[in-house]
Amino acid sequence: MPVEGLSINLATVRQQWDMRQAVDACLAQGITAIAPWRDQVAKIGLDEAARLVANNDLKVTGLCRGGMFPAADPAGRAAAIDDNKRAIDEACTLRADCLVLVVGGLPETSRDIVHAREMVADGIAAILPHARAAGMPLAIEPLHPMYAADRACVNTLAQALDICELLGDGVGVAIDVYHVWWDPDLARQIARAGAMGRILAHHICDWLVPTRDLLLDRGMMGDGVIDLKGIRAMIEAAGFHGHQEVEIFSAENWWKRPGEEVLATCVERFRTVC
Amino acid sequence: MPVEGLSINLATVRQQWDMRQAVDACLAQGITAIAPWRDQVAKIGLDEAARLVANNDLKVTGLCRGGMFPAADPAGRAAAIDDNKRAIDEACTLRADCLVLVVGGLPETSRDIVHAREMVADGIAAILPHARAAGMPLAIEPLHPMYAADRACVNTLAQALDICELLGDGVGVAIDVYHVWWDPDLARQIARAGAMGRILAHHICDWLVPTRDLLLDRGMMGDGVIDLKGIRAMIEAAGFHGHQEVEIFSAENWWKRPGEEVLATCVERFRTVC
Repeated sequence: MPVEGLSINLATVRQQWDMRQAVDACLAQGITAIAPWRDQVAKIGLDEAARLVANNDLKVTGLCRGGMFPAADPAGRAAAIDDNKRAIDEACTLRADCLVLVVGGLPETSRDIVHAREMVADGIAAILPHARAAGMPLAIEPLHPMYAADRACVNTLAQALDICELLGDGVGVAIDVYHVWWDPDLARQIARAGAMGRILAHHICDWLVPTRDLLLDRGMMGDGVIDLKGIRAMIEAAGFHGHQEVEIFSAENWWKRPGEEVLATCVERFRTVC
Repeated sequence: MPVEGLSINLATVRQQWDMRQAVDACLAQGITAIAPWRDQVAKIGLDEAARLVANNDLKVTGLCRGGMFPAADPAGRAAAIDDNKRAIDEACTLRADCLVLVVGGLPETSRDIVHAREMVADGIAAILPHARAAGMPLAIEPLHPMYAADRACVNTLAQALDICELLGDGVGVAIDVYHVWWDPDLARQIARAGAMGRILAHHICDWLVPTRDLLLDRGMMGDGVIDLKGIRAMIEAAGFHGHQEVEIFSAENWWKRPGEEVLATCVERFRTVC
């Protein structure tokens, strides 16, 4: 029986399986939507990944990830732009709904977050013509402020939407509850994103108390404190009715369990607490 | 030679010394401003702590901390209010510039951060008459969003200032660079806080890359990525020229070093990078 509306970001089972194995396991549990990471695609080859998608009629809710625009020198920034164009092409080959952008943090030795943010807007502007020509939407994913220095200096939905307004069509947002659940302005910004027609993805997991690692201690839906149903209601009221994509990095828990158990738990929690 | 404008939050040397020893060590290095925690005061006794302050003519830039207002039941909320009133009285006895409020996170089993935020505003409102009568300013400290669940659901300066506007005189903000440096709205909100006359404290440390622990891996000024001089300029331009208070929780580094070395480093960095 297919599980309607659920997508599995393959980072959730990256320690257990390669992309081919993960797809087989998803299909075995009725999951027909996925979101792979570029390294997972590269490992089996882009052509083989595209065949897996086409032959199994998979929905690809996003490709992770482009971004990482700020760099200390022009050569670094140019290299990032080239890599992002390749990522756009890969997303097209995989028929992904969007290319997710984790925009990057401060360049080495920099303390100038304002400048880093300018480099992000400039970088997205530079790849946007390529994305538009390819018909591939770019999804800026605001990351939790605890990643501002080293992963993404776009840290709120408001900030991401300001960039969308600045740059025009072809760019929107990926809303990951882990990154935005704390935001006092969340309800207003989700409504704004909907009114702008910019919601491209809805990622779910949970915030654990305590959280033991800044990166690799995300929780399974229902095990933490995020009001998943409440945020889902905001996103649906804003007009987005796409898949909820589970993305869990969990070095000490879910990555150590059998992949089948992880997927079965995702399905069960998706049906009960999301 | 006195170190003008530097205050040491005694949490910075809490593993090395009790309050009496910390005061002696500060004075030996020309540091005449401190901010103790209530448990440090309690350990030597409030009267003795007050004598230390008076006899040495110490500036007390704040008492840490009141707050922790949200609770699952009315009895819990009432207990928090009583405890905050005692904290106000202690801050008066110590002639502190303000009582710092770490407002609290989600009550046990709650996923309703909107309600927790209402409980915070209600709690501050409940203690404000006592604080006003005592002449003790309350300093809401917005905490980094990574503490939204378990320590403070006030996570931006904007949010703290909204509460100040709601409640009127007697309440302001403590601006800790560690908690706010990432905020895209920082410059505007610091200017707003200044225009409102609400800046009560300026805390400093640094954000390390990587940060290895959510709570106890703060960096010494200059060792991380925060634009300390830039934020100081914003705060001074907003009209606050009080002490910069060093507050470093560092289980694996500074708490393991000799206290004299920690203080000497604080002085040297204060003079060069802050």
